[in-house]
Amino acid sequence: MATALNPLPPGLSERQFAEVLKRFEAALGADTVITAPAALEEFHDPYNLPGRTDFKPSAALFPSSVEQIQDILRIANADRVPLWTVSQGRNNAYGGAAPRLPGAVLLNLRRMNRVLEIDEACAYALVEPGVRFFDLYEAIRAGGHKLMISVPDLGWGSVIGNTLDHGFGYTPYGDHTASQCGMEVVLANGDIIRTGMGAMNGNHTWQTYKKGFGPTPDGLFMQSNFGIVTKMGMWLLPRPECYMSCFAQCPKESDLGPLIETIRPLVLDRTIPNYPIVGNVLGGASMMSRRKDWYDGDGALPDSVLDDMTRKLGMGRWNLRFALYGHEAVVDAQYKLVEAAFAKLPGAKLGGRKYAGATMADTVPAQDRTQAGIPSLDILTMVAWYGGGEGGHLDFSPVAPLKGAEVVKQTALVRRVVESFGLDYSAGIIITPRSAVQICLLSFDKKDSRQVERAFDCCKALVVEAAKAGYGEYRAHLEVMDLVAEQYGFNDHAQRRFNETLKDALDPNGILSPGKQGIWPKAMRDGR
Amino acid sequence: MATALNPLPPGLSERQFAEVLKRFEAALGADTVITAPAALEEFHDPYNLPGRTDFKPSAALFPSSVEQIQDILRIANADRVPLWTVSQGRNNAYGGAAPRLPGAVLLNLRRMNRVLEIDEACAYALVEPGVRFFDLYEAIRAGGHKLMISVPDLGWGSVIGNTLDHGFGYTPYGDHTASQCGMEVVLANGDIIRTGMGAMNGNHTWQTYKKGFGPTPDGLFMQSNFGIVTKMGMWLLPRPECYMSCFAQCPKESDLGPLIETIRPLVLDRTIPNYPIVGNVLGGASMMSRRKDWYDGDGALPDSVLDDMTRKLGMGRWNLRFALYGHEAVVDAQYKLVEAAFAKLPGAKLGGRKYAGATMADTVPAQDRTQAGIPSLDILTMVAWYGGGEGGHLDFSPVAPLKGAEVVKQTALVRRVVESFGLDYSAGIIITPRSAVQICLLSFDKKDSRQVERAFDCCKALVVEAAKAGYGEYRAHLEVMDLVAEQYGFNDHAQRRFNETLKDALDPNGILSPGKQGIWPKAMRDGR
Repeated sequence: MATALNPLPPGLSERQFAEVLKRFEAALGADTVITAPAALEEFHDPYNLPGRTDFKPSAALFPSSVEQIQDILRIANADRVPLWTVSQGRNNAYGGAAPRLPGAVLLNLRRMNRVLEIDEACAYALVEPGVRFFDLYEAIRAGGHKLMISVPDLGWGSVIGNTLDHGFGYTPYGDHTASQCGMEVVLANGDIIRTGMGAMNGNHTWQTYKKGFGPTPDGLFMQSNFGIVTKMGMWLLPRPECYMSCFAQCPKESDLGPLIETIRPLVLDRTIPNYPIVGNVLGGASMMSRRKDWYDGDGALPDSVLDDMTRKLGMGRWNLRFALYGHEAVVDAQYKLVEAAFAKLPGAKLGGRKYAGATMADTVPAQDRTQAGIPSLDILTMVAWYGGGEGGHLDFSPVAPLKGAEVVKQTALVRRVVESFGLDYSAGIIITPRSAVQICLLSFDKKDSRQVERAFDCCKALVVEAAKAGYGEYRAHLEVMDLVAEQYGFNDHAQRRFNETLKDALDPNGILSPGKQGIWPKAMRDGR
Repeated sequence: MATALNPLPPGLSERQFAEVLKRFEAALGADTVITAPAALEEFHDPYNLPGRTDFKPSAALFPSSVEQIQDILRIANADRVPLWTVSQGRNNAYGGAAPRLPGAVLLNLRRMNRVLEIDEACAYALVEPGVRFFDLYEAIRAGGHKLMISVPDLGWGSVIGNTLDHGFGYTPYGDHTASQCGMEVVLANGDIIRTGMGAMNGNHTWQTYKKGFGPTPDGLFMQSNFGIVTKMGMWLLPRPECYMSCFAQCPKESDLGPLIETIRPLVLDRTIPNYPIVGNVLGGASMMSRRKDWYDGDGALPDSVLDDMTRKLGMGRWNLRFALYGHEAVVDAQYKLVEAAFAKLPGAKLGGRKYAGATMADTVPAQDRTQAGIPSLDILTMVAWYGGGEGGHLDFSPVAPLKGAEVVKQTALVRRVVESFGLDYSAGIIITPRSAVQICLLSFDKKDSRQVERAFDCCKALVVEAAKAGYGEYRAHLEVMDLVAEQYGFNDHAQRRFNETLKDALDPNGILSPGKQGIWPKAMRDGR
């Protein structure tokens, strides 16, 4: 049981930790505890450099039941062993499975991977944390259910993990937190709660009604370290009669503002019912080519190259992807309204492809699958932009109101800072009815340590600059979690005081995911 | 300053309380503190009998600012004075403004009544607790905004108060908690937090993006006593081009199950985008007539009288009200789909009336206003069923999955229990995409003390019987709050332990709304 190469949990000697590991093994079985440095590498930040990141676990545990989690918590509480919970740990743009606190013990829930229930009539599923989007999709297919899920760009992630981290997909249920209904949570003291109507034994509405009697704590367990979510209900869409995958291309950089103003009324009144995305041409180009195909100079790509891409790829400088779903007559009526709106946008090119919902899985080509809720890994090619097979990325994700002027102001700010670090500006803007969530992909070549360093430095600068302009991030990498949290300073950081009050009450020993989203237990924040 | 006729706050002598009141007056001004028994009567449970209810405040405070609330909290913490917060206090079916704890000081927020912001582009409003649905509607009208609000049956209630108590309206934004975006909350210790993106100074997305960075606590402040909500964002609907108010009538009692099965796919795929309601004939009759017009016997109305009503009023035994909104072409396509679905339901009669959205307020007749977001008090006539001008009611509100068999089982259970107490069964079932929220109106004659007693006894029996069958309530009267909370027994009442942990951490002196939704502070639960 070699741990020499792994960091130790703070406050524990090597000998003490060896004792703790023995207790974990005795309680869970040896195959549930991993300490071999090579095996733990899978759980390091996948896109960081070994030399510059401390986010490494001391060991990893793979419980397969709620009872085993309770056993782990008993041991961790007794010896103040910090844990770091992940479901699948595929949150790669923000640090993957790696713990914020060096030496925390990884609590990896991927073995708890049962789809517990699929209810076709009321269109929901109840899943465990290890269930990936791929798994849920397959379970629905295998059961022959006329249901559709919402998937993020990559299907390998956990449905629960993605939702707890405020993830998005691109169907009408693309705001995954809004589709969550009912949770089972193991608290730090081992107590098990069920939220909403699940708090009543034998209740029939745990996955059909979001609230219960009294306060609703579900939001507390997202992006937090207040508990371990072991079951979650997820609302699914009835498979539509017709699915229409649509696009609009705008030729000029300056089209972004008018494009946003055109989209807003359409998403606000649900003429466009899904979560569309607007990407710049570089984002699009990175899915089908590499930087060296276009340019081999240093510094950010010049506008002339972006124009070149636009022409050669037949794309716009800004490219909108959206979808319509439902009975064909309604889809047709909605599309006409979209056409009329885009007719007022000079130069915009609009199009779409219709699919029959019943045969959706087999007939939809790759580029139209995500909006149809069909999971894939296609978009992984984007990270090869700089480094080819050794590419990596780090996402910076600020939110703006869905107004042309605001989105233009924010993208200009982000582009200016990104380019000032000599990096290319790649943006995908998720459109919600009232907000634009910009995902700025800071790609780098993992073999180029100076470029990696620049990307992380750039991300830090962006956090500060964006906050000055009034924009906060919806999600953040381990390395900037404290910095992002620091920007939320209303009333002298009242939010932090509130979160710490809850943390101390729910987890007095501070064992659950210390540092997650900038929330530290009492013992670790005294020096702050 | 006579308080002899009011109950005193527990633990305070008359003299001590007089001192406390002096401190409140000194801090807030005399007109902000009410103690005259006659003036306090407005804040007793409006539909309970003076002799049988203890839910009476010792005094009432009317702060007009967050700073005054902080002053009140300072005094209340120092002397352990329990407060009971209401916004407008119009929650009449569940106890009105009355406090759960006899002698609590009413903290009435109706003077904080500013509409702070209306943003037409992103379709939201930011309001204070005293803003009624009437006020918000008028503010939108006065500003000429092309926006629509969602209103509950009665427009006199507070937008915040209704939302915090999980209230419903009948537009596509009828689930008011789901339309809430961003809160300002004063905690028991006087600290002020803003949730979501409001936690960042100068952030532009407080009312456009629901989450922030880290856990989302908004749900914690609904149906709870963890804080005082002083500002709240509410999403509004763009005023549609066309509004179509529709109905379907089903002739037979046994049509309820098939009706629910017919509605479910239509609301699940948003062909019907709003929150419809299904009422039984008695509910409909009570809006336009009184019991004595139909029957003067004791006990529950016999089925023959219900048939008689159905014929004479031209209604169904079950009556669905729903609405379509949007561009006329889409509304027409949606209505055709609804027609096709109802064509398969024997005996069902379907109809609708279209209105142009631009002139909505002036042209919509009374019965079609609620679904158009136009507030009124029309439905108040229902409480006159038994007692005429002296009628009262108490609501029992269990939730079922939106499945025919479940809704039939639940309504049969409720009807059986209600009729066993000799009362008439009046039900309105709010249709959400996956759940049916049954509002069973237990009407009574306030002059008939035995009938009032029977209604409350009936409600208690219903709570227990419904829980045995797996149904929980979404809301409850003061008198059954503890009983309802008691039914949520999963894992030996883990939810209660969790709520109490939060309560003790956030409000160690137990001053905020003791007993709200069955959550009591430490000092008051020791004897339980």
